[in-house]
Amino acid sequence: MAVAVTFGEIMMRLATPGHQRFVQATEFEISYAGAEASVAVSLAAFGHQASLATVLPNNPLGDACLGWLRYYGVDPRHVRRSDTGRMGVYFLEAGAAQRPSKVVYDRAGSAITLAPAASYDWPAMFDGVDWFHTTGITPALGPACAEATASALKAAKTAGLQTSFDINYRGNLWSKEVAQKTVEPMLASVDLVIANEQDAADVLGIHAEKTDISKGQIDRQSYEGVARQIQERYGCAKVAITLRESESATINHWSACLLDADGFHLSQRYTIHVVDRVGAGDAFCGGMASALLDGMGSQEALEFAVAASCLKHSIPGDFNKVTKAEVLRLSGGDGSGRVVR
Amino acid sequence: MAVAVTFGEIMMRLATPGHQRFVQATEFEISYAGAEASVAVSLAAFGHQASLATVLPNNPLGDACLGWLRYYGVDPRHVRRSDTGRMGVYFLEAGAAQRPSKVVYDRAGSAITLAPAASYDWPAMFDGVDWFHTTGITPALGPACAEATASALKAAKTAGLQTSFDINYRGNLWSKEVAQKTVEPMLASVDLVIANEQDAADVLGIHAEKTDISKGQIDRQSYEGVARQIQERYGCAKVAITLRESESATINHWSACLLDADGFHLSQRYTIHVVDRVGAGDAFCGGMASALLDGMGSQEALEFAVAASCLKHSIPGDFNKVTKAEVLRLSGGDGSGRVVR
Amino acid sequence: MAVAVTFGEIMMRLATPGHQRFVQATEFEISYAGAEASVAVSLAAFGHQASLATVLPNNPLGDACLGWLRYYGVDPRHVRRSDTGRMGVYFLEAGAAQRPSKVVYDRAGSAITLAPAASYDWPAMFDGVDWFHTTGITPALGPACAEATASALKAAKTAGLQTSFDINYRGNLWSKEVAQKTVEPMLASVDLVIANEQDAADVLGIHAEKTDISKGQIDRQSYEGVARQIQERYGCAKVAITLRESESATINHWSACLLDADGFHLSQRYTIHVVDRVGAGDAFCGGMASALLDGMGSQEALEFAVAASCLKHSIPGDFNKVTKAEVLRLSGGDGSGRVVR
Amino acid sequence: MAVAVTFGEIMMRLATPGHQRFVQATEFEISYAGAEASVAVSLAAFGHQASLATVLPNNPLGDACLGWLRYYGVDPRHVRRSDTGRMGVYFLEAGAAQRPSKVVYDRAGSAITLAPAASYDWPAMFDGVDWFHTTGITPALGPACAEATASALKAAKTAGLQTSFDINYRGNLWSKEVAQKTVEPMLASVDLVIANEQDAADVLGIHAEKTDISKGQIDRQSYEGVARQIQERYGCAKVAITLRESESATINHWSACLLDADGFHLSQRYTIHVVDRVGAGDAFCGGMASALLDGMGSQEALEFAVAASCLKHSIPGDFNKVTKAEVLRLSGGDGSGRVVR
Amino acid sequence: MAVAVTFGEIMMRLATPGHQRFVQATEFEISYAGAEASVAVSLAAFGHQASLATVLPNNPLGDACLGWLRYYGVDPRHVRRSDTGRMGVYFLEAGAAQRPSKVVYDRAGSAITLAPAASYDWPAMFDGVDWFHTTGITPALGPACAEATASALKAAKTAGLQTSFDINYRGNLWSKEVAQKTVEPMLASVDLVIANEQDAADVLGIHAEKTDISKGQIDRQSYEGVARQIQERYGCAKVAITLRESESATINHWSACLLDADGFHLSQRYTIHVVDRVGAGDAFCGGMASALLDGMGSQEALEFAVAASCLKHSIPGDFNKVTKAEVLRLSGGDGSGRVVR
Amino acid sequence: MAVAVTFGEIMMRLATPGHQRFVQATEFEISYAGAEASVAVSLAAFGHQASLATVLPNNPLGDACLGWLRYYGVDPRHVRRSDTGRMGVYFLEAGAAQRPSKVVYDRAGSAITLAPAASYDWPAMFDGVDWFHTTGITPALGPACAEATASALKAAKTAGLQTSFDINYRGNLWSKEVAQKTVEPMLASVDLVIANEQDAADVLGIHAEKTDISKGQIDRQSYEGVARQIQERYGCAKVAITLRESESATINHWSACLLDADGFHLSQRYTIHVVDRVGAGDAFCGGMASALLDGMGSQEALEFAVAASCLKHSIPGDFNKVTKAEVLRLSGGDGSGRVVR
Repeated sequence: MAVAVTFGEIMMRLATPGHQRFVQATEFEISYAGAEASVAVSLAAFGHQASLATVLPNNPLGDACLGWLRYYGVDPRHVRRSDTGRMGVYFLEAGAAQRPSKVVYDRAGSAITLAPAASYDWPAMFDGVDWFHTTGITPALGPACAEATASALKAAKTAGLQTSFDINYRGNLWSKEVAQKTVEPMLASVDLVIANEQDAADVLGIHAEKTDISKGQIDRQSYEGVARQIQERYGCAKVAITLRESESATINHWSACLLDADGFHLSQRYTIHVVDRVGAGDAFCGGMASALLDGMGSQEALEFAVAASCLKHSIPGDFNKVTKAEVLRLSGGDGSGRVVR
Repeated sequence: MAVAVTFGEIMMRLATPGHQRFVQATEFEISYAGAEASVAVSLAAFGHQASLATVLPNNPLGDACLGWLRYYGVDPRHVRRSDTGRMGVYFLEAGAAQRPSKVVYDRAGSAITLAPAASYDWPAMFDGVDWFHTTGITPALGPACAEATASALKAAKTAGLQTSFDINYRGNLWSKEVAQKTVEPMLASVDLVIANEQDAADVLGIHAEKTDISKGQIDRQSYEGVARQIQERYGCAKVAITLRESESATINHWSACLLDADGFHLSQRYTIHVVDRVGAGDAFCGGMASALLDGMGSQEALEFAVAASCLKHSIPGDFNKVTKAEVLRLSGGDGSGRVVR
Repeated sequence: MAVAVTFGEIMMRLATPGHQRFVQATEFEISYAGAEASVAVSLAAFGHQASLATVLPNNPLGDACLGWLRYYGVDPRHVRRSDTGRMGVYFLEAGAAQRPSKVVYDRAGSAITLAPAASYDWPAMFDGVDWFHTTGITPALGPACAEATASALKAAKTAGLQTSFDINYRGNLWSKEVAQKTVEPMLASVDLVIANEQDAADVLGIHAEKTDISKGQIDRQSYEGVARQIQERYGCAKVAITLRESESATINHWSACLLDADGFHLSQRYTIHVVDRVGAGDAFCGGMASALLDGMGSQEALEFAVAASCLKHSIPGDFNKVTKAEVLRLSGGDGSGRVVR
Repeated sequence: MAVAVTFGEIMMRLATPGHQRFVQATEFEISYAGAEASVAVSLAAFGHQASLATVLPNNPLGDACLGWLRYYGVDPRHVRRSDTGRMGVYFLEAGAAQRPSKVVYDRAGSAITLAPAASYDWPAMFDGVDWFHTTGITPALGPACAEATASALKAAKTAGLQTSFDINYRGNLWSKEVAQKTVEPMLASVDLVIANEQDAADVLGIHAEKTDISKGQIDRQSYEGVARQIQERYGCAKVAITLRESESATINHWSACLLDADGFHLSQRYTIHVVDRVGAGDAFCGGMASALLDGMGSQEALEFAVAASCLKHSIPGDFNKVTKAEVLRLSGGDGSGRVVR
Repeated sequence: MAVAVTFGEIMMRLATPGHQRFVQATEFEISYAGAEASVAVSLAAFGHQASLATVLPNNPLGDACLGWLRYYGVDPRHVRRSDTGRMGVYFLEAGAAQRPSKVVYDRAGSAITLAPAASYDWPAMFDGVDWFHTTGITPALGPACAEATASALKAAKTAGLQTSFDINYRGNLWSKEVAQKTVEPMLASVDLVIANEQDAADVLGIHAEKTDISKGQIDRQSYEGVARQIQERYGCAKVAITLRESESATINHWSACLLDADGFHLSQRYTIHVVDRVGAGDAFCGGMASALLDGMGSQEALEFAVAASCLKHSIPGDFNKVTKAEVLRLSGGDGSGRVVR
Repeated sequence: MAVAVTFGEIMMRLATPGHQRFVQATEFEISYAGAEASVAVSLAAFGHQASLATVLPNNPLGDACLGWLRYYGVDPRHVRRSDTGRMGVYFLEAGAAQRPSKVVYDRAGSAITLAPAASYDWPAMFDGVDWFHTTGITPALGPACAEATASALKAAKTAGLQTSFDINYRGNLWSKEVAQKTVEPMLASVDLVIANEQDAADVLGIHAEKTDISKGQIDRQSYEGVARQIQERYGCAKVAITLRESESATINHWSACLLDADGFHLSQRYTIHVVDRVGAGDAFCGGMASALLDGMGSQEALEFAVAASCLKHSIPGDFNKVTKAEVLRLSGGDGSGRVVR
């Protein structure tokens, strides 16, 4: 069991039931979500001690959110409660067939965005910790969060932690230009950079060839070049890229690649009937961090992370509620979906 | 923004949740539905002023129905309330895989069927109106409705409106023979005839070659012949035919063709994982009317109508709750279903 | 209308809604289930008089269970109520995509397991009865149930009933060795042995060639050999084997074969988008028994049973809530899933 | 165990959840309901063999309805299926506080109303039967039903059954004048007349003194006069009257009186927090019939019937899902509502 | 039919189901709510033309909100859509017994608060309008809203409208001091001031004698003094005060008083089993405005408004979904809650 | 913040929705419950560190249960997972009015009952702990549990903890005689004995005068005698007795008394409209332990415990999800249930 800390916002997720559109829904299903929270949940599910550094409002919605973190086994020690700021919310309408899922963010003014960077004592928080993870969403939340993210990454490197960073570009939070200017300096403190099939182009300006994402067409081999450019330009030891081929909102193909000291590795490719794809990238990050903390080899770790995130697509909610045994069963070749009695 | 009127019954739709059969359901989901109401909702969603000419019972169920029309932006001015007659109901059990969806109609004695033809003052209602739409269901509801439909179409032509008519054959409302005798004279007043892959055979006796619908096999090219025969026999300026290839209740292929002064146009063909296919034909009618009112060219209008109705398959309920931007995005080529944030 | 008796446990089934995992569910959907109860429901649905010999606890849960048997037309005369023993329960989490469905059994100490074998008066119960069916689950429930099963089969043969036995191996109830030792002597009293693609290997040690079930690969022809070995070794007049090719929890291919005096018959093969696959094997048994009681020929009976169980995959709950007309429509070739109005 | 037959319509009941008004509901809860069906369910729950003579449409809604009758233990032998006529429906909005519950009937054209009176062979149906019950709703459904009701009552008397008739006036089905003219002649064949606090005034023109129902004020003693007038005028052996004092939709006081050869009996009076009061009168009828069939004395039978119907107010749905032991516990004095473990 | 305009924010209301606490809820029921929107809905329900002046965000949540206004018959002409600002939200946990309901507001930064005061053209909006209503919540939303409220009231007086203002003090939006300083000058333009039993004390510093609200004790007569002081100090023609005696979250007593040229009027007092009390004050305002627009006398109008708001307590959601006939029935004396068939 | 340990079983609670009876329910609401778990939740909610010593099965149902303990802030360190034994279940049907709630236990063979007494190392577990609580349910679960309970109480006294014991007699688990023989010797190690109005009579043979519980009649003063006898006979420092006067399942009166060195204290008495009364006794125990750990005086502690458990009646589920501030507000006199904004 290793010890990990992640840093970021956790929001209330309000999703329409079934495949209802916002305009017709009369109920929302409540869960809690956030990229870095999802990674913490994955790490806890895989047997590690994981905590989320975040700030929650001091009201009953914050209480419920904190309860769910505890429910899924996340160590609550770095969750601060604050009287200023609200609970961030995101509204989700699940797509199907040719209709995309739709997310309406309502996260401005949330408690974490109002917390000063100086309020985190990273060196103390990293004592005895093995791994630190955050994503490009956290610095996008505002200047205080951006400053805190930079400090956290530096403090983590100084303290000898392994660090991972998922680029996770969100166009509604900041522009590509600001994202690039903010993220690039951070990469110096990152051991493992993670991106999806679009992120490198959006934030780092590195494009894959023969790829048209809106048509669901991806040339998987061309991402070796993307990974190598990232490695060379920023000096990160490892680069992992998830590769979603979106045939429709219902049918996705899912795989990933990993470039490390061992070379370039391409995972198997799953064809998935999607139940809920939100959080799959985070499930990949959580799987990869867990696999590496467990000492798996490169290809094995990659396959573990891809299998973990493949399973996420079948589970409602952002969090990847799976066990290590379930992931190993799939990465070991049994994707037949036969009933387990 | 153009102005449109549609004419027909609106019913309460009571659907079993999930894929439950009638025999096991303990709840029904309530919505409101009807071919011509759906077309009005589509036109309103695409920015036009649309009203539905209909009759609703003067009870709380009628109140709710009227509320939903207003909810979806339909102009309520031509909804009459009556103390005689009931709210028509249809019960829906959603199929899946090899099991078809099942509809139980309970619409006899509904308010609209008891309203005399003379109670509609079409010339007054058509003042300032651009488009009139109705379907073969309305005249099938009884003699008064049939007479009113014929009068409406004539009055519309006289007043210079564009008219569209969806054949929409319902075997449980009338026989093919009566349908043919009733519908054929009406077509003289119709500019745009719309049919599905079966209607022309059922009502007009015009068959497509190499087509076996119960096996999901359709020869798309052969429908040019069907369209040309309709055009020649009834003198309609435009003929549009939707082409459903039903592989199973879950997997459908969907496309359409249009014959007009410009020639014969065949749309792209979508493969769809069906959420709810009821109302797709009406979504096509609404899309086509809107596209033509907006002045789109033939192929563009056809692709707009097919994309609109493709999206309908992903939405619970009869009404096509989409925006023009969403349709254009799909007809423009993005059917990848990637999350919109 | 023939008369049939089945013998086995009926449990409360508590299923998470949608595709929720156990860990996130806050509600269970209640239904009642059990292999032999499902067969009785199928027979009743197809027009036969069917009763289930079982024991239910004398509490409100037992009342509800009995109500549902009556609801689905099962003759309740052989349902005994007991003050000792509980209602067996099974918890179900429905899988999707690469994630398998998961069953947690909680059936120890149920009322039927505590009823002595001597408490069933089989000769009296079989008076005027045409068919007796049970499965390998019943003897696995404990010594009293095993003894009662053996007695029932012998009494049925003596009374001139047709008997069917579905091997239905459950690894969590007993070992393969005990299963084999218990089941093999029973087969002497069985006219129709039914197995799935794994059962013969698990319980009888008879393996199909070129088959890797966890990869969803099945060589359908090789099951002729399996069937012939069963027939030869145990002297059963008929052997039917269902053949599930599980591509994922969502996509299954489904077919079956039958060996009888007429020779070896292989059914058509359906590709199914799964709604709920639990109970499909029992739907096959029920379909086969009904078809044979109705006097259908071998291939026709096989196709009826496969079509019936194909439809089961589209229906929530274990019971196969279909009519004979619906099955014949599918076995007759219409699997297009077009709406029935 | 005695044998009873009841005669009347059974409808689908569609109720808004919670205390929602029709105008805001997006779901209906489905159950099945009807005065005479409720009495049959009560009798079956209390251990008698009870059947409902009725006609159901030959569609899946009729199948479900029949299933529920079987579920609650009603003998289905006198349920006829018909291809003409629909399933009657009633919509229910549950009131609260000062807001009354609201019922919208949609029962015109239901299967039972279209069945000719000659289609019932009452002498055959009454063979071996002890009790016959119907209500003033059945003759109100139309001429054929009125004729059938009169024939049934006469046939029952001829065959030596005990007969009970609940006046059950429904102003939306017929006028007071027609009701009086139709019901009065029937009373000659009735042993036990049942009425609520309004019925005698509405249908028979017999008024209680000092009573203003819309204010919830009832003079319980004055109903002795009402009962005596009914007895004298129509010669019925027994007259029972339920006495609802409706303080609000939430708070009701509930009692009843019985006049028989033994004299006039007044029951205890319960103050009830109402969950669902629909069907309480029928629960009284069922309780009274059961108690008399069981040979209870007058006061005991009255208290049993009042306690049974008191409990009905706490149960969702029309049917009174209670056991004899539960009723006896309450009539025996324990209304404390302490948890039963 | 008169014409009315109200001005204020409309929010999304997210309520836990049943009596669940926030911390245990996994679903929210969605509706839309706001004091001034509720008044507009009441006026529309009572047959007037009512519009709400407000600003909604230009996203699907705003679309849904607008749909519901139309659904309940509110004229949407003064609803502006904006690309800046979010949809205000309030979270509701319904109390019971001794546990109070709890509201968590999340309305900061909503679209209406970001709209400049100059963006409303009141003189144009008041053309042909009879009544203007707003509440103390609107100016509490921020400086722009406060300025717009003052302008609106002045413009309304100038244009000859009748004006009403509900003090509606919300301690979480502003302090009593700021409220007093802001509200007092506005009262010069107000014809009808409405307050609840606390507002006058909180905002105007005018206290009722012998009243301890937290114990549910109110001296109804002492409010005559409160009303007279308001009238004298601010010169308003009419003062109405609602008087809630809260025995518990479940049991409330509800009445009101009105002071006008006619003198002081005290209404009847209802004892209510509460379903949902949020919005009752607004239902009173809507009832009062409607009654006065309809020309009712003082006592009659007061009783109408109290009966309307009494009924609101029985209905889930903020809006008072009742008809004029239902209110008149209650104010006319029938509060028995007997089923309406 | 003090440290507390409780010991006992935690079960899955499956409750019918609304006021549905078991026989009509098609869904169960899932929560987790148990007397000692509830006390731990209360202590955690009031700010103490509380852990539950228990044993859970090693399956997904056990995972979910453990998650909920963490959710509500219970320290999970003493929850053991076991491969033998099942999850205990209790089924709940919520009563209303005169109909009592009904509990069906299905807890035989649960994991905790199969754990040997020696598997608990109480001295180690009590290191640094201030308070130990258990109830009469734990020893009733079987010999191993009885032995473990006795050891735990002795070890707690030895280690200097304060101990509390709620008699909590369950007639379906053991007879009064066995209960008395088992419980009496334990009381020597108990500082605070808690009982409800029946327990002392059932288990200790000490009866209150002038009390008939099934009629809801309690003579509150007579419980001083009961408390004094318990104190004298067993030498417990403190005796607390809860006093439920059950008028109906909906209306309860609730109070308690405490006898300690200070004398006899009687609390205020609340009249409650019950939402869910299960767990109220445990809420009292948790409130009392918390109050005493916080150093409150006798009357103050008693009022705190009574107010806490009064609030529990308004909350669905066994656990008392309230804060200390909410309890103090009620015990301080505000039970008006006015909305908190």
